[in-house]
Amino acid sequence: MTISLDRFQKDYDIAVIGAGPAGISAALSAAVRKKRVVLMDREPMKKIKSAAVINNYPGLPGVTGQELKSAFLDHLNKFDIEINTASASKITKVKNRFSVYTGKHSFKTKSVILCPGTVEGKRIEGEEGLVGRGVSYCVTCDGLLYQGKNVAVISDFEGGEDEARALAEDYNCKVTYIPLDTKNDKSPGHETPDMFGINLINEPPIMLSEGTEGQINISFEKRTITVDGIFISRAVAPPASLLRGLEMNKNYITVGPSMETSIRGVFAAGDCTGPPFQIAKAAGQGQLAALSAVEYLGKKRSPK
Amino acid sequence: MTISLDRFQKDYDIAVIGAGPAGISAALSAAVRKKRVVLMDREPMKKIKSAAVINNYPGLPGVTGQELKSAFLDHLNKFDIEINTASASKITKVKNRFSVYTGKHSFKTKSVILCPGTVEGKRIEGEEGLVGRGVSYCVTCDGLLYQGKNVAVISDFEGGEDEARALAEDYNCKVTYIPLDTKNDKSPGHETPDMFGINLINEPPIMLSEGTEGQINISFEKRTITVDGIFISRAVAPPASLLRGLEMNKNYITVGPSMETSIRGVFAAGDCTGPPFQIAKAAGQGQLAALSAVEYLGKKRSPK
Repeated sequence: MTISLDRFQKDYDIAVIGAGPAGISAALSAAVRKKRVVLMDREPMKKIKSAAVINNYPGLPGVTGQELKSAFLDHLNKFDIEINTASASKITKVKNRFSVYTGKHSFKTKSVILCPGTVEGKRIEGEEGLVGRGVSYCVTCDGLLYQGKNVAVISDFEGGEDEARALAEDYNCKVTYIPLDTKNDKSPGHETPDMFGINLINEPPIMLSEGTEGQINISFEKRTITVDGIFISRAVAPPASLLRGLEMNKNYITVGPSMETSIRGVFAAGDCTGPPFQIAKAAGQGQLAALSAVEYLGKKRSPK
Repeated sequence: MTISLDRFQKDYDIAVIGAGPAGISAALSAAVRKKRVVLMDREPMKKIKSAAVINNYPGLPGVTGQELKSAFLDHLNKFDIEINTASASKITKVKNRFSVYTGKHSFKTKSVILCPGTVEGKRIEGEEGLVGRGVSYCVTCDGLLYQGKNVAVISDFEGGEDEARALAEDYNCKVTYIPLDTKNDKSPGHETPDMFGINLINEPPIMLSEGTEGQINISFEKRTITVDGIFISRAVAPPASLLRGLEMNKNYITVGPSMETSIRGVFAAGDCTGPPFQIAKAAGQGQLAALSAVEYLGKKRSPK
């Protein structure tokens, strides 16, 4: 499998967000049906590779997580499906066409299959209420609104540094970078964003709250800073922040029997749709979502 | 894999009817959860073994139907799951316990997972309206009602001959045997049932209809016979005739998001729940049905 980084064509039939068992299965079934597919994941098969032994994936008895990961990626490779390692930060819909935004690029697609898995990172306290009122998930979409202003970038993965740099360099912002991934505190990446005068705060924010004059306060254990806007960047974006209007049932995407979501043209499969969290189930749902997307694309094309 | 013929234990946690991808996946996930499982199919993986190449079963790229059949049966074997080649002809529920009847035996189970696939054989014209009014699917259940009477056995597989013999020998019936499987017309099996005075009609019935005094007419192209009762025996019983009260949507079993059917304790998975007819999807649904059955069994055990 070729892993292609941030390289997109302009237009796809189906964008599959997440390359675990559900996303890989969806991409395979879509490719078998000759659709133009992009499969995106910063870290494909991340969750599975740590599994010791899997006993109930039919046909591969007692396979280890690493072996199953290899088998799945090999399958993609045989069908010339690349995994794009960019992370989708926002998806918008205009008429029947979707735009998918990553940190640096955007592309269009006729349909979307969401397979992000369970979202591990919790939201920050106060985050949810401020979405669209100072909290954004997409520099490409909203960076211009904050040109020359005072912003923070909060990120749980290194990709956030690119967004911090883009805000400083392209939009002339005064940027504070706040990495959430404290495991990597000492990694070289986390020491470099100051190249464009970026301020680094290496401790986790505890709460976000409204300040005066449309500003936002970010509270840490012993101090509070005030900014004009916050960009939150997560390796796996919570689906509801990725796609406005997506109906959720608690933390899970609401799906119908064909894996359709509340948004026409958007399907979901795998752990993001709720428990049980199992590989064969996820792969089956991915296949069903792909075939439902194929059917949707066919109906769009037909005159009626 | 040991194929065990007509050998049952007395009591199971889960009976899986049908050993295609859905049923095999269900049995594997149930066994992983340490449940007592019986997996029944007269001809395991029948539909798949004829597939030339399967491109979208994740992890096994370009596998042939025969190879996938071997891989699935090998997986069962590694987990000591036997396939019982008897055919379930009727399932009844009393309180929270199910009785599964085959041609010769019956056993009890706490839950059922239906994975019979699509039912290929169409019903005979008039059949549906006569169920319970002269048409039965189960000699073990209803044979005694027809003791000494004039009955017909209509069967699409050789197992029907056993039922014809049982009616003649055990219940002293006057039996007419009507094989539907005209491909096998010349097989030795179809020439032997006359050993107990069984009459053989080697042409397909066209219509069943009510006669006088509770009798039933069976019409053939050029003649009509009259009997007291008809036993219809199919290799794969139509689900609605297998289990009374099972809610169907046209030819498919109605299922909820956890693969539960309209009957508590009965789950369904795979092609029997409707299109698309795909292997990964069937395996995923089988896994989900098994875990839902496990949850159901857990709730039954708990005090509330």
